[in-house]
Amino acid sequence: MSFDTTIGGATPSGGFARSRELFERAARVIPGGIYGSKAPGFLVPGSYPYYLEKAKGCRMSDPDGNEYIDFLCGYGSQIVGYGNEAVDGAAVARLRDGDLLDQPAPVMVELAERLVASVEGAAWSVFVKNGTDATTLALSLSRVATGKRVAILAEGAYHGAADWCSSNLFPELEGERRDVRRFRYNDLEGLEALFRRERGRVACLFLTPYHHPTFKPQEMPDPALYDLARRLCDEEGALLVLDDIRANYRLHPRGSHVRFGGRPDLVCMGKALANGYPISCLLGAEALRKAASAFFITGTYWMSAAPMAAAMACLDEMERLGGIPRLEALGGLLKEGLEAAGRGAGFGAHVTGPSAIPFLTFDEDPNLYLNQRFGAAMARRGVFLHPHHNWFLSLAHGEADIAATVDRARDAFAGMRSGRE
Amino acid sequence: MSFDTTIGGATPSGGFARSRELFERAARVIPGGIYGSKAPGFLVPGSYPYYLEKAKGCRMSDPDGNEYIDFLCGYGSQIVGYGNEAVDGAAVARLRDGDLLDQPAPVMVELAERLVASVEGAAWSVFVKNGTDATTLALSLSRVATGKRVAILAEGAYHGAADWCSSNLFPELEGERRDVRRFRYNDLEGLEALFRRERGRVACLFLTPYHHPTFKPQEMPDPALYDLARRLCDEEGALLVLDDIRANYRLHPRGSHVRFGGRPDLVCMGKALANGYPISCLLGAEALRKAASAFFITGTYWMSAAPMAAAMACLDEMERLGGIPRLEALGGLLKEGLEAAGRGAGFGAHVTGPSAIPFLTFDEDPNLYLNQRFGAAMARRGVFLHPHHNWFLSLAHGEADIAATVDRARDAFAGMRSGRE
Repeated sequence: MSFDTTIGGATPSGGFARSRELFERAARVIPGGIYGSKAPGFLVPGSYPYYLEKAKGCRMSDPDGNEYIDFLCGYGSQIVGYGNEAVDGAAVARLRDGDLLDQPAPVMVELAERLVASVEGAAWSVFVKNGTDATTLALSLSRVATGKRVAILAEGAYHGAADWCSSNLFPELEGERRDVRRFRYNDLEGLEALFRRERGRVACLFLTPYHHPTFKPQEMPDPALYDLARRLCDEEGALLVLDDIRANYRLHPRGSHVRFGGRPDLVCMGKALANGYPISCLLGAEALRKAASAFFITGTYWMSAAPMAAAMACLDEMERLGGIPRLEALGGLLKEGLEAAGRGAGFGAHVTGPSAIPFLTFDEDPNLYLNQRFGAAMARRGVFLHPHHNWFLSLAHGEADIAATVDRARDAFAGMRSGRE
Repeated sequence: MSFDTTIGGATPSGGFARSRELFERAARVIPGGIYGSKAPGFLVPGSYPYYLEKAKGCRMSDPDGNEYIDFLCGYGSQIVGYGNEAVDGAAVARLRDGDLLDQPAPVMVELAERLVASVEGAAWSVFVKNGTDATTLALSLSRVATGKRVAILAEGAYHGAADWCSSNLFPELEGERRDVRRFRYNDLEGLEALFRRERGRVACLFLTPYHHPTFKPQEMPDPALYDLARRLCDEEGALLVLDDIRANYRLHPRGSHVRFGGRPDLVCMGKALANGYPISCLLGAEALRKAASAFFITGTYWMSAAPMAAAMACLDEMERLGGIPRLEALGGLLKEGLEAAGRGAGFGAHVTGPSAIPFLTFDEDPNLYLNQRFGAAMARRGVFLHPHHNWFLSLAHGEADIAATVDRARDAFAGMRSGRE
């Protein structure tokens, strides 16, 4: 496939007739018609496509032929861009030799060696499929290793859609959530008090490297958070779990905890690890090797070699394309440009979070209504921004893409200010 | 890649030096060095490879260059054979257009329509990744839809490696298993008594289409089992869940329950659905559409389009290659040949289960010691048979492969009888 890469030339004008038609068909055979509530098309009906058709680099098109510069990057998975030839080439070569065999291929060992050598604090690695497989295994392993049950999570932190951490709050599934406690992110006293209250019962504390709740500005960790977390876990005999799945390889190449001086016992990775090929992993400290070895850890698809080959190629490709410094430079341009464009139209628009994983919110917009209007206005201008979930830069974005995005944002802000949209 | 397809020419003689070397490296970076205890290399050390390198059709090779006719088929995933060109072609074409985008591609709708039209009793379909994602979602959905908690499973039935159904029996994870009860497969009175004892508490009954425990002969359902299960569920207001993941498309093209006249409320499928590309699904009856719509069902990798494209191609390819009648003919030849070869050497070797999913055990061999000797003897002769997990036929097997397997089995039985192995 190829996109018209003339920046600024690709603005959606085709409407969403095909998307809607597909959605109507889907509503008959798929509950909700699509995956849950996270699609922008649900949040801002009529302004986003429900389906997407093709993608290359940082460009996507929908079934109606509308084209977008994409800043969601497959929910963070695309770090070297859609259809990256080195990564796809490695995966396809592996497919030709057979993908899912009766036992793992040697590339599993090579990938484990590479991650253990590169992720700070990791002595071993286990490969799983979903990110939630990694976080759930981290939870179970923590419980077995400590002989305790309570898991402490930050309010609004996303660790997957399993019953123990999902936003499904059905009373029938209360049992799965019973031993989960929540603290307000960066509330150091509250966290300490919670550990005190649960003394003798805490198996683990989950942290994302920084806080990226939906519907809210992102929040960087208090400089004292990681040390406090380590101390509280040590005093309690609990494990510190870093859920790096959404952020990995956008904050630090040796694991996002390194950026903040964190010292977790377990690290969950996925998404960008293989540029979206389905593989996640749980990495652990030496002290937990024995506990992990006692687990029956298995899944038929977990042995697939193509995602492992893709991960090896993706690690090379991230480095070749400039890695985190490059992502941060692009993110810096985007933040600066969007905030200035907002100010120009009289909006208090602020980009929060790390440069490579930005999110824009408006001052005094607690319901994200302005976010929805802005997202819709940008979608109409061929830029795909999620209105309530953080965005991502990839190494397939270029300065010209950022400039085009800022230009369109200026126009969108003006339209919003004038009340035209 | 290409294999020497001269039947009988490919016997392992290279030993397992590379496999062992990889295993030693893996033991330093992967707890247990490989996925859990299910690999034959663990059960019969020195007689099986720990890793596999390449595969095409029904042939595999290991890192030491040993070649095998494979009857494990990626734990059932490979139904049209490794490296099937139509299936891989569809997946690769989709990869070139982008695989994991921010929203699903139209092929998701097409696949859902196709499954709903073809699987008997299905009104809707939700796509997930692991088979365990489907069974766990079936469990949670049953609990929410019925307002009750207890799940009834057959002893020894495999429904995944999640904490609620895994063979990990750590006391710290007892909470996850608390509301699970087990009955002895085909014990109709026992099942009825269990429903009576748990009256008012049962959310669901899980059945596999027939019983395929590890370490034991396979068992076909009592002719009265499905009707009894339906009646007990109806009386209790519980849901009947068919876990068809291991058997689907090897018993009946409209769902394995059709073969036995079963009427489940939920059906879990995966593995052979896309010839091993990572996708599973939960299909449900109309009455459960509303409950399923209320669930937040999501996973980043679940939107990947390539496995959906692979599933569409696989459904075509299964039919083109002769489908279940062809698998059954091959399985019939294998059963007949192996049992006759066993008898010839004085062994009471019996093949149980459906023709397309056979498993061989020996009379009076409760510890499967003879199975291990036979598996090892066959591996030495270039046939990959799991000694304690059922086998699978694929549409890439041919009559000549079966004949070669039977020839080698005759030789293996003779070797076992003479005490040479």
